Amino acid sequence: MKQNFAVIGLGRFGTSICRVLATEQQEVLAIDINEDRVNDLADVATEAIVADAQDEETLRSLEIGKFDHVIVAIGKNIQANILVTLIVKELGVPDITTKAENDTHARVLARIGADQVVHPERDMGARVAHHLLSPNILNYLAINDDVTMAEVKITSSAFVGKSLIELNFHQRFGLTVIAIQHGDNVIVSPAGSDVVQLNDEISVVGPTQAVEELNDRMNN
Amino acid sequence: MKQNFAVIGLGRFGTSICRVLATEQQEVLAIDINEDRVNDLADVATEAIVADAQDEETLRSLEIGKFDHVIVAIGKNIQANILVTLIVKELGVPDITTKAENDTHARVLARIGADQVVHPERDMGARVAHHLLSPNILNYLAINDDVTMAEVKITSSAFVGKSLIELNFHQRFGLTVIAIQHGDNVIVSPAGSDVVQLNDEISVVGPTQAVEELNDRMNN
Ligand SMILES: Nc1ncnc2c1ncn2[C@@H]1O[C@H](COP(=O)(O)OP(=O)(O)OP(=O)(O)O)[C@@H](O)[C@H]1O
Ligand SMILES: Nc1ncnc2c1ncn2[C@@H]1O[C@H](COP(=O)(O)OP(=O)(O)OP(=O)(O)O)[C@@H](O)[C@H]1O
Ligand SMILES: [Ca+2]
Ligand SMILES: [Ca+2]
Ligand SMILES: [Ca+2]
Ligand SMILES: [Ca+2]
Repeated sequence: MKQNFAVIGLGRFGTSICRVLATEQQEVLAIDINEDRVNDLADVATEAIVADAQDEETLRSLEIGKFDHVIVAIGKNIQANILVTLIVKELGVPDITTKAENDTHARVLARIGADQVVHPERDMGARVAHHLLSPNILNYLAINDDVTMAEVKITSSAFVGKSLIELNFHQRFGLTVIAIQHGDNVIVSPAGSDVVQLNDEISVVGPTQAVEELNDRMNN
Repeated sequence: MKQNFAVIGLGRFGTSICRVLATEQQEVLAIDINEDRVNDLADVATEAIVADAQDEETLRSLEIGKFDHVIVAIGKNIQANILVTLIVKELGVPDITTKAENDTHARVLARIGADQVVHPERDMGARVAHHLLSPNILNYLAINDDVTMAEVKITSSAFVGKSLIELNFHQRFGLTVIAIQHGDNVIVSPAGSDVVQLNDEISVVGPTQAVEELNDRMNN
């Protein structure tokens, strides 16, 4: 189903959103106060416009209230970010996503009616830091505060050439093996007889603590 | 195991990395050319220093070469970002993570020896766009180009009050259910008799296409 999106603020974050939405065949209106930024998206977005989004009349004339989703991707200028969020809310946009600089800012945005508040730099900083601390955890997804799914790279010889029955992840770590990736090949729901090789990437689910313990075992 | 990290560039991304590393009890040297940024981290980092990291003598006198990991989190000034990456490489740092602005920049960084090149704004922009397009997919992890693990929110009455046997995800979608989250409670490796309720979050693994199809079914 094609929907209408307006992205306000074409920094690296807003530009990336425009590109993905356009690739997925959505209608995208791209807005920035800076002409160069707008020109960069002229061939990507459905429409790309130079405007100061803090000017309510401009947003009204663009009929922003008729868009399904508005993304406020203005960053450093917190005042502009808040004011623009407020205006699009008042103009009746049903779903607003806004980028926040910090927790106080996020609370203000939630209060004035932003539906999703995102912290791109903070969240990616945390991901990168966790990856540096646990380099064998290639990727993770927190199901809740206690349970994590993760993809772990097998680099310890203690695991190599052994079957899942021998490795006994469930008893030893409290982890369930969901998949084994060997090169391009992925086995989903592997059997107990499936064998783990060096550099295989195994996907597991279980207590976050247990995932970290498995990572630690890879470095010995 | 405690390691030494130097973070150069204390924007939102670099600051977040410093905070997570400090929380995890690591040694962190924080560097920025801007005194305010450095002051904000004085109580968080092991040491926080005002310096222009483009000055090789400064980095040499800080013995940057002896750090286990250096993160170059300078953003918009691509020239400074590349030069600093080059200097820390020449000073012998064994693991360098650098933030890139775009693909060309990323290629240059890989060529001069950055071990990890990250695109925080681009990657988070893509995540946010995908979430807007598939709002029932709360979170996902790509195992490879074809297979995805995802957490999907149950909002369609067609799924509510039914057991996994009745829902038959495997036959209908090619998906395996890894976990069911009901409020604070997570059931890992659920039984066929386990029942799905409204607003439960189910974790599945299978073809990326199938995950998208499941998301589509939630909106009818
Ligand atoms: N009032 C405004 N109206 C329209 N666009 C604006 C306005 N104020 C700022 N912008 C644009 O928002 C974009 C993002 O702002 P800024 O560069 O401060 O944020 P940022 O968080 O560093 O960006 P990113 O991290 O996404 O690169 C810029 O291209 C800027 O020109
Ligand atoms: N030569 C330098 N030496 C030390 N720090 C620098 C240097 N050049 C820039 N910085 C610092 O790097 C930090 C990040 O740079 P900048 O704000 O351009 O990037 P950014 O990608 O917009 O940041 P973020 O998205 O993480 O907020 C800034 O605090 C800036 O002062
Ligand atoms: Ca940024
Ligand atoms: Ca969840
Ligand atoms: Ca920025
Ligand atoms: Ca993988």
